Amino acid sequence: MHRFRVFGLFVDAPLDTAAQAVSFWSAALHAKPRVADGDDTYTRLTGALSGLEMEVQAVNDQPRYHVDIETDDVEAEALRLIRLGATVVSRPPGWYVLRAPGGHLLCVVKVQSDPEFFDANSREVG
Amino acid sequence: MHRFRVFGLFVDAPLDTAAQAVSFWSAALHAKPRVADGDDTYTRLTGALSGLEMEVQAVNDQPRYHVDIETDDVEAEALRLIRLGATVVSRPPGWYVLRAPGGHLLCVVKVQSDPEFFDANSREVG
Repeated sequence: MHRFRVFGLFVDAPLDTAAQAVSFWSAALHAKPRVADGDDTYTRLTGALSGLEMEVQAVNDQPRYHVDIETDDVEAEALRLIRLGATVVSRPPGWYVLRAPGGHLLCVVKVQSDPEFFDANSREVG
Repeated sequence: MHRFRVFGLFVDAPLDTAAQAVSFWSAALHAKPRVADGDDTYTRLTGALSGLEMEVQAVNDQPRYHVDIETDDVEAEALRLIRLGATVVSRPPGWYVLRAPGGHLLCVVKVQSDPEFFDANSREVG
């Protein structure tokens, strides 16, 4: 038995355009940009979406969006999604990058939200 | 003066994989798939996200995600985003497809949500 929820939407912007992407999305959505603690790869767009995190991530790749699923059991959740047809793109320590049927990226990460918020908003499986 | 909000996240799946994408995302997120009224290009994933619509859209293109911004003034909202740096990809009757700085697709559409929900959750600009 484990729990999951969609944590957020990530705007993956090529390194040389990430600053422009942060400026645009924060102004467009009236969100306050804040570099994530200890990792300037991620800029949080606080208040951009109702109910979901939104961040710009600087990537050494083409522009894309992806979604993150947060869970209290990363292995079990990744396995569930693989059984549903997702494939493993990479397996960094502690999290998974998966590709869904249809070709879309999603990551499976440990719980990022406040634990009480996660308890109240996640779904149980297994 | 006009209002906007992020309406939803769209999973744009190539035509030959759209059915698989619907199966995966509906099972993965415990969402009920429902073909949109009158247009089987769009399948709503009801309940997938908290506070945002999520749909699979069958496209004659590569897989991608995009976001929709809904507004009570499509022209004014598109102009606002263009002034912030977005470029026009296409201009179908009544809505815009834009590309944000950084390379990400977003659409500007008329209000799709229930009007009372839009009133309560949109932001004012202008």
